Amino acid sequence: MEIFRTPRIMKETSRRLLTRGRTIGFVPTMGALHDGHLYLVKRARSENDIVVASIFINPAQFGPNEDFVKYPRDFDSDMTKLETAGVDVLFYPEVSAVYPAGFSTYIEVRGLSEKLCGVVRPGHFMGVATVVCKFFQMVLPTRAYFGQKDFQQSRVIEQMVRDLNMSVDCLRCSTIRESDGVAMSSRNRYLAPAEREAARVIYRTLQAAARLVEGGMDVQSVKAQIMDMLSAEPLITDIQYAGIYDPETLDERVAAGRSNLLAAAVKIGSTRLIDNLVLEL
Amino acid sequence: MEIFRTPRIMKETSRRLLTRGRTIGFVPTMGALHDGHLYLVKRARSENDIVVASIFINPAQFGPNEDFVKYPRDFDSDMTKLETAGVDVLFYPEVSAVYPAGFSTYIEVRGLSEKLCGVVRPGHFMGVATVVCKFFQMVLPTRAYFGQKDFQQSRVIEQMVRDLNMSVDCLRCSTIRESDGVAMSSRNRYLAPAEREAARVIYRTLQAAARLVEGGMDVQSVKAQIMDMLSAEPLITDIQYAGIYDPETLDERVAAGRSNLLAAAVKIGSTRLIDNLVLEL
Repeated sequence: MEIFRTPRIMKETSRRLLTRGRTIGFVPTMGALHDGHLYLVKRARSENDIVVASIFINPAQFGPNEDFVKYPRDFDSDMTKLETAGVDVLFYPEVSAVYPAGFSTYIEVRGLSEKLCGVVRPGHFMGVATVVCKFFQMVLPTRAYFGQKDFQQSRVIEQMVRDLNMSVDCLRCSTIRESDGVAMSSRNRYLAPAEREAARVIYRTLQAAARLVEGGMDVQSVKAQIMDMLSAEPLITDIQYAGIYDPETLDERVAAGRSNLLAAAVKIGSTRLIDNLVLEL
Repeated sequence: MEIFRTPRIMKETSRRLLTRGRTIGFVPTMGALHDGHLYLVKRARSENDIVVASIFINPAQFGPNEDFVKYPRDFDSDMTKLETAGVDVLFYPEVSAVYPAGFSTYIEVRGLSEKLCGVVRPGHFMGVATVVCKFFQMVLPTRAYFGQKDFQQSRVIEQMVRDLNMSVDCLRCSTIRESDGVAMSSRNRYLAPAEREAARVIYRTLQAAARLVEGGMDVQSVKAQIMDMLSAEPLITDIQYAGIYDPETLDERVAAGRSNLLAAAVKIGSTRLIDNLVLEL
Protein backbone atom coordinates (compact mmCIF):
# COMPACT_ATOMS: atom_id res chain seq x y z
CA MET A 1 0.00 0.00 0.00
CA GLU A 2 1.32 3.39 -1.02
CA ILE A 3 0.77 6.34 1.31
CA PHE A 4 0.40 9.68 -0.47
CA ARG A 5 0.57 12.87 1.55
CA THR A 6 0.29 15.57 -1.14
CA PRO A 7 -2.55 16.43 -3.52
CA ARG A 8 -0.04 16.65 -6.36
CA ILE A 9 1.14 13.05 -6.24
CA MET A 10 -2.42 11.81 -5.65
CA LYS A 11 -3.69 13.64 -8.75
CA GLU A 12 -0.79 12.63 -10.96
CA THR A 13 -1.24 8.99 -10.01
CA SER A 14 -5.00 9.03 -10.61
CA ARG A 15 -4.62 10.71 -13.99
CA ARG A 16 -2.07 8.14 -15.05
CA LEU A 17 -4.33 5.28 -13.92
CA LEU A 18 -7.34 6.69 -15.78
CA THR A 19 -5.30 7.19 -18.94
CA ARG A 20 -4.47 3.50 -18.74
CA GLY A 21 -8.17 2.66 -18.50
CA ARG A 22 -8.11 1.59 -14.83
CA THR A 23 -11.19 2.01 -12.63
CA ILE A 24 -10.66 3.66 -9.25
CA GLY A 25 -12.82 2.90 -6.20
CA PHE A 26 -12.62 5.54 -3.47
CA VAL A 27 -13.48 5.30 0.23
CA PRO A 28 -13.16 8.69 1.96
CA THR A 29 -12.91 8.47 5.77
CA MET A 30 -12.00 10.52 8.81
CA GLY A 31 -10.05 7.55 10.22
CA ALA A 32 -10.89 5.81 13.53
CA LEU A 33 -11.94 2.97 11.30
CA HIS A 34 -14.51 0.35 12.21
CA ASP A 35 -16.10 -2.54 10.32
CA GLY A 36 -18.48 -0.14 8.56
CA HIS A 37 -15.54 1.54 6.85
CA LEU A 38 -13.95 -1.82 6.06
CA TYR A 39 -17.17 -2.98 4.45
CA LEU A 40 -16.93 0.00 2.09
CA VAL A 41 -13.33 -0.96 1.28
CA LYS A 42 -14.42 -4.54 0.59
CA ARG A 43 -17.08 -3.34 -1.85
CA ALA A 44 -14.59 -1.02 -3.52
CA ARG A 45 -12.03 -3.83 -3.75
CA SER A 46 -14.48 -6.16 -5.50
CA GLU A 47 -15.73 -3.58 -8.01
CA ASN A 48 -12.63 -1.66 -9.13
CA ASP A 49 -9.08 -2.16 -10.39
CA ILE A 50 -7.56 0.22 -7.85
CA VAL A 51 -8.79 1.12 -4.36
CA VAL A 52 -7.96 4.48 -2.81
CA ALA A 53 -8.94 5.23 0.80
CA SER A 54 -8.40 8.60 2.42
CA ILE A 55 -8.04 9.60 6.05
CA PHE A 56 -8.71 13.28 6.60
CA ILE A 57 -10.42 14.87 9.58
CA ASN A 58 -11.99 17.79 7.79
CA PRO A 59 -12.07 20.91 9.95
CA ALA A 60 -14.57 22.59 7.57
CA GLN A 61 -17.35 20.20 8.57
CA PHE A 62 -17.05 20.71 12.32
CA GLY A 63 -18.85 23.57 14.07
CA PRO A 64 -17.03 25.78 16.58
CA ASN A 65 -18.44 23.82 19.56
CA GLU A 66 -18.09 20.38 18.01
CA ASP A 67 -15.55 17.60 18.53
CA PHE A 68 -12.87 18.37 15.92
CA VAL A 69 -10.08 18.46 18.50
CA LYS A 70 -11.11 15.36 20.40
CA TYR A 71 -12.24 13.36 17.32
CA PRO A 72 -10.45 9.97 17.65
CA ARG A 73 -7.14 9.66 15.78
CA ASP A 74 -5.50 6.26 15.43
CA PHE A 75 -3.37 6.35 12.30
CA ASP A 76 -1.19 3.27 12.87
CA SER A 77 -4.14 1.01 13.54
CA ASP A 78 -6.12 2.50 10.61
CA MET A 79 -3.18 2.00 8.27
CA THR A 80 -2.88 -1.67 9.19
CA LYS A 81 -6.61 -2.23 8.71
CA LEU A 82 -6.60 -0.61 5.27
CA GLU A 83 -3.52 -2.49 4.12
CA THR A 84 -5.04 -5.79 5.31
CA ALA A 85 -8.30 -4.96 3.51
CA GLY A 86 -6.43 -4.61 0.23
CA VAL A 87 -6.28 -0.84 -0.25
CA ASP A 88 -3.75 0.17 -2.93
CA VAL A 89 -3.34 3.83 -2.03
CA LEU A 90 -3.91 5.57 1.29
CA PHE A 91 -4.28 9.30 0.76
CA TYR A 92 -3.48 11.06 4.03
CA PRO A 93 -2.93 14.77 3.39
CA GLU A 94 -2.17 17.49 5.91
CA VAL A 95 -4.87 20.07 6.66
CA SER A 96 -2.59 22.79 5.27
CA ALA A 97 -2.30 20.92 1.95
CA VAL A 98 -6.08 20.63 1.61
CA TYR A 99 -6.82 24.17 2.82
CA PRO A 100 -3.80 26.30 1.91
CA ALA A 101 -3.62 29.97 2.88
CA GLY A 102 -6.16 32.00 0.91
CA PHE A 103 -8.59 29.11 0.49
CA SER A 104 -12.04 30.65 -0.07
CA THR A 105 -14.28 28.39 -2.21
CA TYR A 106 -17.29 26.61 -0.76
CA ILE A 107 -19.98 24.38 -2.25
CA GLU A 108 -23.50 24.69 -1.01
CA VAL A 109 -26.20 22.11 -1.73
CA ARG A 110 -29.24 24.18 -0.87
CA GLY A 111 -32.31 22.62 0.69
CA LEU A 112 -30.93 19.17 1.50
CA SER A 113 -28.15 20.67 3.62
CA GLU A 114 -30.49 22.64 5.86
CA LYS A 115 -32.71 19.78 6.98
CA LEU A 116 -32.30 17.10 9.72
CA CYS A 117 -28.66 17.27 10.91
CA GLY A 118 -28.28 20.60 9.10
CA VAL A 119 -30.60 22.30 11.60
CA VAL A 120 -28.26 21.71 14.54
CA ARG A 121 -25.07 21.66 12.43
CA PRO A 122 -25.27 24.76 10.21
CA GLY A 123 -22.42 24.75 7.68
CA HIS A 124 -21.68 21.05 8.27
CA PHE A 125 -22.83 19.86 4.85
CA MET A 126 -21.14 22.80 3.12
CA GLY A 127 -17.91 21.54 4.69
CA VAL A 128 -18.71 17.98 3.60
CA ALA A 129 -19.66 18.90 0.03
CA THR A 130 -16.59 21.11 -0.38
CA VAL A 131 -14.07 18.55 0.85
CA VAL A 132 -15.69 15.67 -1.05
CA CYS A 133 -15.63 17.71 -4.26
CA LYS A 134 -11.94 18.45 -3.66
CA PHE A 135 -11.10 14.81 -2.98
CA PHE A 136 -13.05 13.72 -6.06
CA GLN A 137 -10.95 16.11 -8.15
CA MET A 138 -7.76 14.71 -6.63
CA VAL A 139 -8.62 10.99 -6.60
CA LEU A 140 -10.73 10.99 -9.82
CA PRO A 141 -12.75 7.99 -8.66
CA THR A 142 -14.87 5.87 -10.95
CA ARG A 143 -16.95 4.91 -7.90
CA ALA A 144 -17.11 6.32 -4.37
CA TYR A 145 -18.50 4.48 -1.35
CA PHE A 146 -20.50 5.98 1.52
CA GLY A 147 -22.27 4.41 4.48
CA GLN A 148 -26.03 4.61 4.82
CA LYS A 149 -25.67 5.58 8.48
CA ASP A 150 -24.79 9.06 7.23
CA PHE A 151 -27.83 9.06 4.97
CA GLN A 152 -28.13 12.82 4.62
CA GLN A 153 -24.43 13.10 3.79
CA SER A 154 -24.84 10.60 0.97
CA ARG A 155 -27.89 12.50 -0.36
CA VAL A 156 -26.01 15.81 -0.30
CA ILE A 157 -23.06 14.26 -2.14
CA GLU A 158 -25.25 12.52 -4.72
CA GLN A 159 -27.04 15.82 -5.37
CA MET A 160 -23.75 17.69 -5.74
CA VAL A 161 -22.40 15.07 -8.14
CA ARG A 162 -25.56 15.28 -10.25
CA ASP A 163 -25.76 19.08 -10.19
CA LEU A 164 -22.07 19.64 -10.96
CA ASN A 165 -21.97 16.96 -13.70
CA MET A 166 -19.28 14.97 -11.96
CA SER A 167 -18.59 11.55 -13.41
CA VAL A 168 -18.22 9.57 -10.19
CA ASP A 169 -20.77 6.90 -9.34
CA CYS A 170 -21.72 7.27 -5.65
CA LEU A 171 -22.76 4.08 -3.89
CA ARG A 172 -24.63 4.06 -0.60
CA CYS A 173 -23.73 0.92 1.39
CA SER A 174 -25.60 -0.76 4.23
CA THR A 175 -25.04 0.39 7.78
CA ILE A 176 -22.93 -2.13 9.68
CA ARG A 177 -24.12 -2.78 13.22
CA GLU A 178 -22.77 -4.24 16.43
CA SER A 179 -24.37 -7.53 17.49
CA ASP A 180 -26.88 -5.62 19.63
CA GLY A 181 -28.00 -3.47 16.69
CA VAL A 182 -26.13 -0.25 17.49
CA ALA A 183 -24.82 1.33 14.29
CA MET A 184 -21.04 1.35 14.11
CA SER A 185 -19.64 4.84 14.51
CA SER A 186 -16.25 6.27 15.41
CA ARG A 187 -18.10 8.33 18.01
CA ASN A 188 -19.29 5.22 19.88
CA ARG A 189 -15.94 5.23 21.67
CA TYR A 190 -17.03 8.40 23.49
CA LEU A 191 -19.78 6.42 25.26
CA ALA A 192 -19.45 5.29 28.89
CA PRO A 193 -20.70 1.68 29.43
CA ALA A 194 -24.16 2.76 30.61
CA GLU A 195 -24.44 5.18 27.67
CA ARG A 196 -23.40 2.45 25.24
CA GLU A 197 -26.18 0.28 26.71
CA ALA A 198 -28.67 3.17 26.37
CA ALA A 199 -27.67 3.69 22.70
CA ARG A 200 -29.50 0.45 21.83
CA VAL A 201 -32.82 2.27 22.14
CA ILE A 202 -32.21 4.21 18.89
CA TYR A 203 -32.23 1.31 16.44
CA ARG A 204 -34.79 -0.58 18.53
CA THR A 205 -37.09 2.43 18.23
CA LEU A 206 -36.56 2.74 14.46
CA GLN A 207 -37.32 -0.97 14.00
CA ALA A 208 -40.46 -0.75 16.14
CA ALA A 209 -41.55 2.32 14.18
CA ALA A 210 -41.02 0.47 10.90
CA ARG A 211 -43.32 -2.30 12.09
CA LEU A 212 -45.97 0.26 13.05
CA VAL A 213 -45.78 1.91 9.63
CA GLU A 214 -45.98 -1.49 7.95
CA GLY A 215 -49.02 -2.21 10.14
CA GLY A 216 -50.74 0.84 8.67
CA MET A 217 -50.45 3.30 11.57
CA ASP A 218 -50.48 6.93 10.39
CA VAL A 219 -47.09 8.66 10.48
CA GLN A 220 -48.12 11.26 13.07
CA SER A 221 -49.00 8.50 15.54
CA VAL A 222 -45.82 6.61 14.69
CA LYS A 223 -43.81 9.75 15.33
CA ALA A 224 -45.48 10.15 18.73
CA GLN A 225 -44.51 6.54 19.50
CA ILE A 226 -40.93 7.19 18.44
CA MET A 227 -40.70 10.23 20.70
CA ASP A 228 -42.19 8.28 23.61
CA MET A 229 -39.73 5.40 23.19
CA LEU A 230 -36.70 7.67 22.93
CA SER A 231 -37.86 9.89 25.79
CA ALA A 232 -38.25 6.84 28.03
CA GLU A 233 -34.46 6.40 28.00
CA PRO A 234 -33.19 8.65 30.81
CA LEU A 235 -29.63 8.89 29.39
CA ILE A 236 -30.93 10.56 26.22
CA THR A 237 -30.44 14.23 26.99
CA ASP A 238 -31.72 15.64 23.68
CA ILE A 239 -33.80 14.36 20.76
CA GLN A 240 -32.62 16.56 17.88
CA TYR A 241 -34.96 14.99 15.37
CA ALA A 242 -36.80 11.73 14.93
CA GLY A 243 -39.47 10.73 12.47
CA ILE A 244 -40.37 9.58 8.99
CA TYR A 245 -38.92 11.39 5.98
CA ASP A 246 -38.86 11.32 2.20
CA PRO A 247 -35.47 9.72 1.35
CA GLU A 248 -35.14 11.93 -1.74
CA THR A 249 -36.05 15.39 -0.37
CA LEU A 250 -35.53 14.62 3.37
CA ASP A 251 -38.82 16.41 4.06
CA GLU A 252 -40.90 14.99 6.89
CA ARG A 253 -43.64 12.76 5.52
CA VAL A 254 -47.31 13.58 6.17
CA ALA A 255 -48.22 10.07 5.04
CA ALA A 256 -46.09 7.00 4.40
CA GLY A 257 -44.80 6.75 0.85
CA ARG A 258 -43.40 3.87 -1.14
CA SER A 259 -39.93 4.53 0.24
CA ASN A 260 -39.60 5.95 3.76
CA LEU A 261 -36.58 7.09 5.72
CA LEU A 262 -36.96 6.50 9.46
CA ALA A 263 -34.22 8.54 11.10
CA ALA A 264 -33.21 9.95 14.44
CA ALA A 265 -30.46 12.07 15.99
CA VAL A 266 -30.10 12.12 19.76
CA LYS A 267 -27.59 13.09 22.36
CA ILE A 268 -26.61 10.55 24.98
CA GLY A 269 -24.68 12.50 27.57
CA SER A 270 -22.54 14.78 25.45
CA THR A 271 -22.27 12.32 22.52
CA ARG A 272 -24.38 12.91 19.44
CA LEU A 273 -25.55 9.73 17.68
CA ILE A 274 -27.53 9.28 14.47
CA ASP A 275 -29.13 6.27 12.87
CA ASN A 276 -31.71 5.46 10.21
CA LEU A 277 -33.36 2.74 8.22
CA VAL A 278 -35.16 2.80 4.91
CA LEU A 279 -38.55 1.13 4.77
CA GLU A 280 -39.92 0.18 1.34
CA LEU A 281 -43.68 -0.43 1.33
CA MET B 1 -17.34 20.71 -36.43
CA GLU B 2 -19.57 18.54 -34.25
CA ILE B 3 -22.42 20.22 -32.37
CA PHE B 4 -23.27 18.53 -29.05
CA ARG B 5 -26.46 19.46 -27.29
CA THR B 6 -26.46 17.12 -24.28
CA PRO B 7 -24.08 16.92 -21.30
CA ARG B 8 -23.98 13.14 -21.70
CA ILE B 9 -22.49 13.08 -25.20
CA MET B 10 -20.10 15.92 -24.31
CA LYS B 11 -18.79 14.04 -21.26
CA GLU B 12 -18.49 10.71 -23.04
CA THR B 13 -16.54 12.30 -25.86
CA SER B 14 -14.18 14.15 -23.53
CA ARG B 15 -13.51 11.06 -21.45
CA ARG B 16 -12.71 9.07 -24.55
CA LEU B 17 -10.37 11.78 -25.83
CA LEU B 18 -8.53 12.00 -22.49
CA THR B 19 -8.14 8.23 -22.32
CA ARG B 20 -6.43 8.45 -25.71
CA GLY B 21 -4.05 11.06 -24.31
CA ARG B 22 -5.48 14.01 -26.26
CA THR B 23 -5.32 17.55 -24.84
CA ILE B 24 -8.53 19.56 -24.87
CA GLY B 25 -8.61 23.37 -25.12
CA PHE B 26 -11.89 24.94 -24.00
CA VAL B 27 -13.37 28.36 -24.79
CA PRO B 28 -16.62 28.94 -22.86
CA THR B 29 -18.76 31.75 -24.29
CA MET B 30 -22.26 33.20 -24.14
CA GLY B 31 -22.30 33.56 -27.92
CA ALA B 32 -22.67 36.90 -29.76
CA LEU B 33 -19.07 36.30 -30.71
CA HIS B 34 -16.55 39.00 -31.56
CA ASP B 35 -12.82 38.99 -32.31
CA GLY B 36 -12.03 38.74 -28.60
CA HIS B 37 -13.70 35.32 -28.46
CA LEU B 38 -12.03 34.28 -31.70
CA TYR B 39 -8.64 35.23 -30.32
CA LEU B 40 -9.28 32.77 -27.47
CA VAL B 41 -10.18 30.08 -30.00
CA LYS B 42 -6.99 30.79 -31.93
CA ARG B 43 -4.89 30.38 -28.78
CA ALA B 44 -6.76 27.17 -27.92
CA ARG B 45 -6.27 25.88 -31.48
CA SER B 46 -2.51 26.42 -31.38
CA GLU B 47 -2.01 24.84 -27.93
CA ASN B 48 -4.26 21.72 -27.89
CA ASP B 49 -5.16 18.64 -29.90
CA ILE B 50 -8.89 19.27 -29.68
CA VAL B 51 -10.75 22.60 -29.33
CA VAL B 52 -14.16 22.72 -27.66
CA ALA B 53 -16.13 25.98 -27.59
CA SER B 54 -19.42 26.37 -25.76
CA ILE B 55 -22.31 28.75 -26.27
CA PHE B 56 -24.52 29.03 -23.22
CA ILE B 57 -26.26 32.11 -21.90
CA ASN B 58 -26.17 31.24 -18.23
CA PRO B 59 -29.30 32.45 -16.41
CA ALA B 60 -27.63 31.89 -13.02
CA GLN B 61 -25.19 34.76 -13.58
CA PHE B 62 -27.80 37.39 -14.45
CA GLY B 63 -29.56 39.39 -11.74
CA PRO B 64 -33.35 39.84 -11.82
CA ASN B 65 -33.06 43.30 -13.39
CA GLU B 66 -30.24 42.46 -15.79
CA ASP B 67 -30.21 41.74 -19.52
CA PHE B 68 -30.67 37.95 -19.66
CA VAL B 69 -33.71 38.18 -21.93
CA LYS B 70 -32.31 40.77 -24.30
CA TYR B 71 -28.73 39.44 -24.29
CA PRO B 72 -27.81 39.14 -28.01
CA ARG B 73 -28.36 35.69 -29.58
CA ASP B 74 -26.95 34.97 -33.01
CA PHE B 75 -26.38 31.23 -33.26
CA ASP B 76 -25.99 30.82 -37.01
CA SER B 77 -23.37 33.52 -37.30
CA ASP B 78 -21.56 32.24 -34.18
CA MET B 79 -21.52 28.71 -35.53
CA THR B 80 -19.94 29.82 -38.80
CA LYS B 81 -17.29 31.85 -36.96
CA LEU B 82 -16.35 28.93 -34.70
CA GLU B 83 -16.20 26.46 -37.55
CA THR B 84 -14.01 28.84 -39.59
CA ALA B 85 -11.73 29.33 -36.58
CA GLY B 86 -11.11 25.59 -36.41
CA VAL B 87 -13.24 24.53 -33.46
CA ASP B 88 -13.73 20.74 -33.31
CA VAL B 89 -16.73 20.59 -31.00
CA LEU B 90 -19.37 23.21 -30.31
CA PHE B 91 -21.16 22.44 -27.07
CA TYR B 92 -24.54 24.18 -27.12
CA PRO B 93 -26.78 22.75 -24.38
CA GLU B 94 -30.30 23.77 -23.47
CA VAL B 95 -30.84 25.61 -20.18
CA SER B 96 -32.97 22.68 -18.95
CA ALA B 97 -30.09 20.27 -19.60
CA VAL B 98 -27.67 22.38 -17.60
CA TYR B 99 -30.12 23.19 -14.79
CA PRO B 100 -32.58 20.29 -14.60
CA ALA B 101 -35.48 20.33 -12.15
CA GLY B 102 -34.24 20.07 -8.57
CA PHE B 103 -30.88 21.70 -9.31
CA SER B 104 -29.62 23.15 -6.02
CA THR B 105 -25.80 23.24 -5.86
CA TYR B 106 -23.87 26.51 -5.94
CA ILE B 107 -20.20 27.39 -5.71
CA GLU B 108 -19.18 30.46 -3.83
CA VAL B 109 -15.70 32.00 -4.07
CA ARG B 110 -15.80 34.20 -1.00
CA GLY B 111 -14.07 37.54 -0.92
CA LEU B 112 -13.13 37.87 -4.60
CA SER B 113 -16.79 37.54 -5.65
CA GLU B 114 -17.99 40.40 -3.47
CA LYS B 115 -15.64 43.11 -4.74
CA LEU B 116 -15.77 45.38 -7.83
CA CYS B 117 -18.54 44.03 -10.12
CA GLY B 118 -19.78 41.87 -7.23
CA VAL B 119 -20.97 44.96 -5.36
CA VAL B 120 -23.55 45.86 -8.01
CA ARG B 121 -24.06 42.27 -9.21
CA PRO B 122 -24.64 40.18 -6.07
CA GLY B 123 -24.73 36.48 -6.95
CA HIS B 124 -23.19 37.07 -10.39
CA PHE B 125 -19.89 35.35 -9.65
CA MET B 126 -21.64 32.51 -7.82
CA GLY B 127 -23.50 31.90 -11.09
CA VAL B 128 -20.25 32.14 -13.07
CA ALA B 129 -18.28 29.84 -10.75
CA THR B 130 -21.09 27.26 -10.68
CA VAL B 131 -21.57 27.08 -14.44
CA VAL B 132 -17.85 27.06 -15.19
CA CYS B 133 -17.32 24.22 -12.70
CA LYS B 134 -20.14 22.29 -14.39
CA PHE B 135 -18.73 22.89 -17.87
CA PHE B 136 -15.25 21.90 -16.71
CA GLN B 137 -16.69 18.60 -15.44
CA MET B 138 -18.41 18.04 -18.79
CA VAL B 139 -15.66 19.19 -21.15
CA LEU B 140 -12.70 17.98 -19.01
CA PRO B 141 -10.40 20.60 -20.53
CA THR B 142 -6.64 20.50 -20.27
CA ARG B 143 -6.63 24.28 -20.74
CA ALA B 144 -9.41 26.89 -20.60
CA TYR B 145 -9.24 30.36 -22.11
CA PHE B 146 -10.70 33.57 -20.67
CA GLY B 147 -10.45 37.19 -21.73
CA GLN B 148 -8.71 39.74 -19.57
CA LYS B 149 -11.58 42.18 -20.10
CA ASP B 150 -13.50 40.12 -17.54
CA PHE B 151 -10.56 40.27 -15.17
CA GLN B 152 -12.51 39.57 -12.00
CA GLN B 153 -14.24 36.61 -13.63
CA SER B 154 -10.88 35.08 -14.50
CA ARG B 155 -9.62 35.65 -10.93
CA VAL B 156 -12.73 34.00 -9.45
CA ILE B 157 -12.34 31.01 -11.77
CA GLU B 158 -8.61 30.66 -11.11
CA GLN B 159 -9.29 30.73 -7.38
CA MET B 160 -12.05 28.11 -7.69
CA VAL B 161 -9.80 25.84 -9.76
CA ARG B 162 -7.01 26.16 -7.21
CA ASP B 163 -9.28 25.70 -4.16
CA LEU B 164 -11.19 22.73 -5.59
CA ASN B 165 -8.04 20.98 -6.91
CA MET B 166 -9.27 20.98 -10.49
CA SER B 167 -6.71 19.99 -13.08
CA VAL B 168 -7.52 22.56 -15.76
CA ASP B 169 -4.97 25.22 -16.64
CA CYS B 170 -6.76 28.60 -16.88
CA LEU B 171 -5.23 31.10 -19.27
CA ARG B 172 -6.05 34.80 -19.19
CA CYS B 173 -5.74 36.27 -22.68
CA SER B 174 -5.30 39.88 -23.77
CA THR B 175 -8.32 42.09 -24.25
CA ILE B 176 -9.00 42.64 -27.93
CA ARG B 177 -9.93 46.22 -28.81
CA GLU B 178 -11.60 48.09 -31.64
CA SER B 179 -9.31 50.42 -33.56
CA ASP B 180 -10.33 53.31 -31.31
CA GLY B 181 -9.37 51.39 -28.16
CA VAL B 182 -12.85 50.35 -27.00
CA ALA B 183 -12.72 46.82 -25.56
CA MET B 184 -14.69 44.34 -27.64
CA SER B 185 -17.84 43.24 -25.86
CA SER B 186 -21.08 41.59 -26.92
CA ARG B 187 -22.82 44.40 -25.07
CA ASN B 188 -21.30 47.08 -27.33
CA ARG B 189 -24.16 46.39 -29.74
CA TYR B 190 -26.54 47.94 -27.23
CA LEU B 191 -24.83 51.32 -27.72
CA ALA B 192 -26.36 54.08 -29.84
CA PRO B 193 -23.76 55.85 -32.07
CA ALA B 194 -23.21 58.72 -29.63
CA GLU B 195 -22.89 56.26 -26.76
CA ARG B 196 -20.37 54.18 -28.71
CA GLU B 197 -18.36 57.37 -29.24
CA ALA B 198 -18.60 58.18 -25.52
CA ALA B 199 -17.40 54.67 -24.60
CA ARG B 200 -13.91 55.64 -25.80
CA VAL B 201 -13.38 57.63 -22.62
CA ILE B 202 -13.08 54.45 -20.52
CA TYR B 203 -9.88 53.04 -22.02
CA ARG B 204 -8.51 56.53 -22.65
CA THR B 205 -8.93 57.24 -18.94
CA LEU B 206 -7.28 53.96 -17.87
CA GLN B 207 -4.32 54.67 -20.18
CA ALA B 208 -3.95 58.21 -18.87
CA ALA B 209 -4.14 56.91 -15.30
CA ALA B 210 -1.43 54.33 -16.06
CA ARG B 211 0.85 57.15 -17.26
CA LEU B 212 0.19 59.11 -14.07
CA VAL B 213 1.01 56.09 -11.88
CA GLU B 214 4.16 55.48 -13.90
CA GLY B 215 5.07 59.14 -13.39
CA GLY B 216 4.91 58.58 -9.63
CA MET B 217 1.60 60.24 -8.75
CA ASP B 218 0.05 58.78 -5.59
CA VAL B 219 -2.90 56.48 -6.19
CA GLN B 220 -5.43 58.69 -4.37
CA SER B 221 -4.66 61.58 -6.71
CA VAL B 222 -4.75 59.26 -9.73
CA LYS B 223 -8.13 57.98 -8.64
CA ALA B 224 -9.40 61.58 -8.38
CA GLN B 225 -8.13 62.16 -11.94
CA ILE B 226 -9.90 59.01 -13.16
CA MET B 227 -13.17 60.12 -11.60
CA ASP B 228 -12.80 63.60 -13.12
CA MET B 229 -12.13 62.23 -16.60
CA LEU B 230 -15.05 59.79 -16.51
CA SER B 231 -17.41 62.36 -14.98
CA ALA B 232 -16.56 64.81 -17.77
CA GLU B 233 -18.36 62.52 -20.25
CA PRO B 234 -22.03 63.53 -20.08
CA LEU B 235 -23.32 60.20 -21.47
CA ILE B 236 -21.83 58.29 -18.51
CA THR B 237 -24.80 58.00 -16.18
CA ASP B 238 -23.10 56.01 -13.41
CA ILE B 239 -19.53 55.24 -12.35
CA GLN B 240 -19.89 51.97 -10.47
CA TYR B 241 -16.22 51.70 -9.62
CA ALA B 242 -12.96 53.04 -10.98
CA GLY B 243 -9.49 52.94 -9.50
CA ILE B 244 -6.31 51.01 -8.86
CA TYR B 245 -6.51 47.51 -7.40
CA ASP B 246 -4.35 44.58 -6.37
CA PRO B 247 -4.73 42.09 -9.27
CA GLU B 248 -4.53 39.15 -6.84
CA THR B 249 -6.95 40.21 -4.08
CA LEU B 250 -8.87 42.89 -6.06
CA ASP B 251 -8.57 45.18 -3.02
CA GLU B 252 -8.16 48.86 -3.77
CA ARG B 253 -4.53 49.85 -3.51
CA VAL B 254 -3.38 52.49 -1.02
CA ALA B 255 -0.08 52.73 -2.88
CA ALA B 256 1.01 51.42 -6.25
CA GLY B 257 2.48 47.91 -6.13
CA ARG B 258 4.62 46.00 -8.55
CA SER B 259 1.53 44.82 -10.43
CA ASN B 260 -1.52 47.08 -10.56
CA LEU B 261 -4.98 46.57 -11.97
CA LEU B 262 -6.55 49.75 -13.30
CA ALA B 263 -10.22 49.01 -13.74
CA ALA B 264 -13.55 50.73 -14.23
CA ALA B 265 -17.24 49.89 -14.59
CA VAL B 266 -19.60 52.56 -15.88
CA LYS B 267 -23.04 52.85 -17.32
CA ILE B 268 -23.50 54.65 -20.61
CA GLY B 269 -27.22 55.14 -20.93
CA SER B 270 -28.59 51.81 -19.77
CA THR B 271 -25.56 49.80 -20.95
CA ARG B 272 -23.02 48.64 -18.40
CA LEU B 273 -19.42 48.52 -19.67
CA ILE B 274 -16.24 47.34 -17.95
CA ASP B 275 -12.60 47.59 -18.90
CA ASN B 276 -9.19 47.26 -17.28
CA LEU B 277 -5.49 47.19 -17.86
CA VAL B 278 -2.66 45.74 -15.82
CA LEU B 279 0.30 47.99 -15.15
CA GLU B 280 3.58 46.37 -14.09
CA LEU B 281 6.01 48.76 -12.44
